[in-house]
Amino acid sequence: MNRLLPVSSPAPASDDTPNHDGPGRKPTIVREDLIAAALRLIGPHRSVSTLSLREVAREAGIAPNSFYRQFHDMDELAVALIDLAGESLRRIVGDARKRAVSGRSIVRGSLETFMERLRADDKLLHVMLREGTVGSDAFKRAVDRQLLFFEEELRADLVRIAAAQGIAFHEPGLVARAITRLVFAMGGTALDLPPERDAALVDDLSHMIRMLLRGAHAMGRKHARDA
Amino acid sequence: MNRLLPVSSPAPASDDTPNHDGPGRKPTIVREDLIAAALRLIGPHRSVSTLSLREVAREAGIAPNSFYRQFHDMDELAVALIDLAGESLRRIVGDARKRAVSGRSIVRGSLETFMERLRADDKLLHVMLREGTVGSDAFKRAVDRQLLFFEEELRADLVRIAAAQGIAFHEPGLVARAITRLVFAMGGTALDLPPERDAALVDDLSHMIRMLLRGAHAMGRKHARDA
Repeated sequence: MNRLLPVSSPAPASDDTPNHDGPGRKPTIVREDLIAAALRLIGPHRSVSTLSLREVAREAGIAPNSFYRQFHDMDELAVALIDLAGESLRRIVGDARKRAVSGRSIVRGSLETFMERLRADDKLLHVMLREGTVGSDAFKRAVDRQLLFFEEELRADLVRIAAAQGIAFHEPGLVARAITRLVFAMGGTALDLPPERDAALVDDLSHMIRMLLRGAHAMGRKHARDA
Repeated sequence: MNRLLPVSSPAPASDDTPNHDGPGRKPTIVREDLIAAALRLIGPHRSVSTLSLREVAREAGIAPNSFYRQFHDMDELAVALIDLAGESLRRIVGDARKRAVSGRSIVRGSLETFMERLRADDKLLHVMLREGTVGSDAFKRAVDRQLLFFEEELRADLVRIAAAQGIAFHEPGLVARAITRLVFAMGGTALDLPPERDAALVDDLSHMIRMLLRGAHAMGRKHARDA
């Protein structure tokens, strides 16, 4: 997948760049143009699973038939969009985690980066947070796969941090899953709140995550004693 | 709101009960018939926010114009549906909590009841779990309001249980919110998994909840010592 998709500076509106695609003309459209067109159409009141091929083609300035040169159907485009959104999110949070050093600053630093990106109108991130559990099976599997990648990276991080501090977390995989699901669920609602509420949300989330880590640590200690 | 909506035995398909609503005929349709019609139309691949007034009227066997005698617009119907779904869910889980006695059996008992209802094809419950954060502002506020009711009841329960056991949870409101968001997020994905996976999901969720409670308890103890 091309990582150079200009998400923060989307392609100009189709009116400015008519991509006429009649017989005899070479189509200039690429997959990224169609993904960018879909991103412009979706938003707080519009889910990716409700987009029609015709609409996306119109937004991209091509004939509906030309769509098929890039994607088999709308479902394949939706899956590509989710994959791209998941990649983008993992890169952002991964960078934040690498910069942080102690356990507490990792949590807070990652959450703050996350909220900054949310407010920077990163539409790929919005897609990842807003899209619920309605859509085709392929689409839902794509969302789930991205969540699993995210959980696995977080789990590896938790194990690494615990080892560095000479402690052990009980079931780090479950801790990672709980954190991922919480951040996604609460992040999705944050999009509809005014930015003034962000600091309180980061506070709430880091509190919840600390409770989880504290509990996992206590249960890990008990487990080690019992063994 | 009428609590007698026959959710588990939905009204017969419109073909069997034509509710002709032409001039001079008395409309026999009530709000509950329109809600039941909407429930029949939505599902794993169809969100309530994508329903059109025309479709719901057709499914209920009435003319589109007659819709307005019951609801101002589709948004008002969607909000009524969410309110009904939230009430239903709180009643189910509330009953499970009242029956349980100890802390651990409350968690597991509530989760098991929750999964049973999920598998009993309770469409109101499915609506509550599936609908994400795409939809009108009124719709999103309705979802959020139901989550807050749920959190508040859980918070009161946590305080009561802690008092009975002579302990204190750190920030019971945040613990209740974390549990609610986790159960909703994980429950939403459970709908797409085979029922054989339910036991593992209940295990995972009760583990996560125990970590949260354990952490909140440890942090409550520290807080009390520091004070």
